[in-house]
Amino acid sequence: MMKEKKVPTAVIQRMPRYYRYLGDLLERGIARVSSAQLSRRMGITASQIRQDLNHFGGFGQQGYGYNVEVLYNEIGRILGQDQEYSVIVIGAGNLGQAVSKYTNFNKRGYKVTALFDSNPALAGTTVAGYPVFDARELPDYLKENHTDIAVLTIPKAGAAETAKILTDGGVQAIWNFASIDLDLPDDKAVVVNVHLSDSLRVLSYKLRELRSEENPEED
Amino acid sequence: MMKEKKVPTAVIQRMPRYYRYLGDLLERGIARVSSAQLSRRMGITASQIRQDLNHFGGFGQQGYGYNVEVLYNEIGRILGQDQEYSVIVIGAGNLGQAVSKYTNFNKRGYKVTALFDSNPALAGTTVAGYPVFDARELPDYLKENHTDIAVLTIPKAGAAETAKILTDGGVQAIWNFASIDLDLPDDKAVVVNVHLSDSLRVLSYKLRELRSEENPEED
Repeated sequence: MMKEKKVPTAVIQRMPRYYRYLGDLLERGIARVSSAQLSRRMGITASQIRQDLNHFGGFGQQGYGYNVEVLYNEIGRILGQDQEYSVIVIGAGNLGQAVSKYTNFNKRGYKVTALFDSNPALAGTTVAGYPVFDARELPDYLKENHTDIAVLTIPKAGAAETAKILTDGGVQAIWNFASIDLDLPDDKAVVVNVHLSDSLRVLSYKLRELRSEENPEED
Repeated sequence: MMKEKKVPTAVIQRMPRYYRYLGDLLERGIARVSSAQLSRRMGITASQIRQDLNHFGGFGQQGYGYNVEVLYNEIGRILGQDQEYSVIVIGAGNLGQAVSKYTNFNKRGYKVTALFDSNPALAGTTVAGYPVFDARELPDYLKENHTDIAVLTIPKAGAAETAKILTDGGVQAIWNFASIDLDLPDDKAVVVNVHLSDSLRVLSYKLRELRSEENPEED
């Protein structure tokens, strides 16, 4: 297959959105879509769409549009959706539970195998059928269980230390909800930091902007 | 104060990160920081930092750096962190509960007043001390209780309909976790869509890229 290397981060971050929109079209039985149609639906210029997809070799035929299913599957492959992943969740609080129970999580190839929590009282319980272990058992668990992805839903204080245990144990991908930017050795592991408070602040910014447009004299 | 209008979305999305980094410096008692120092810590070029901050009028003095506290407070003001918000959470499942219990949520000026759920069995219960109401009571609740922000933690099927009830009831900001891009009338309400599955797919992309660098022959 084609090689796709060093695609700009902004392009990568748009790909899941294409994937969702194409999935919707597919569900509705639409077989072909032009970049102009996709542009109207997604609010991105057609030129941007063509540029983005060209990073991965194109997919479109001039004047004929994209085959929705082919494009959906190919973007899915680029996004690693043709693989299965074993997943552990560190932190069995509400967020850890929400992630573990997340509808379709399993269906999409992300197989939760266990949760870990530093509260020993939770060890031995289950969440959505998955066992919860004492966090101190994590290094031993990783020795015996190949794990692709760890989800970090713990406070920021322990996040860097836990990340080190994970990467030392061979985990190559961390989905980090702790409110700290984890910086891991590039050649060893990848991380996506999810800062929920950042997105809440963007919302507050937009609300303030909306209100100042309504009442410009007050600003 | 200065006016800041139509700042590019990418710049807005970087502001909460500046805010976090400056907050860390402040906690550590650091009074001044140069754009070069901030650049090293944040992994953004110093030129980008200066450009970003110039959208809001600058703040820096050439060769003297930024006053951390002044910049922190000013970015906080831009991000609406000097305000208080009344917040309702739609969906009292794990994610709704996680958001409601989110440490510092209250401390930061986001005051949860109630949760709503379409499961009548949950009505009358409480989450972290907040009352849970039947979702059918939402229109009446909004008539009687001024609400700034609604957090949507429900499946995508009911999201657009619920968003309409919210905006009709005067809610001007929606923090949307339903896996659908909500498109609201610009002059009536603002929305930030949080697509957790998108960020998981970016992680899977990066993992696949890391592994293909390790084993180029297999790709």
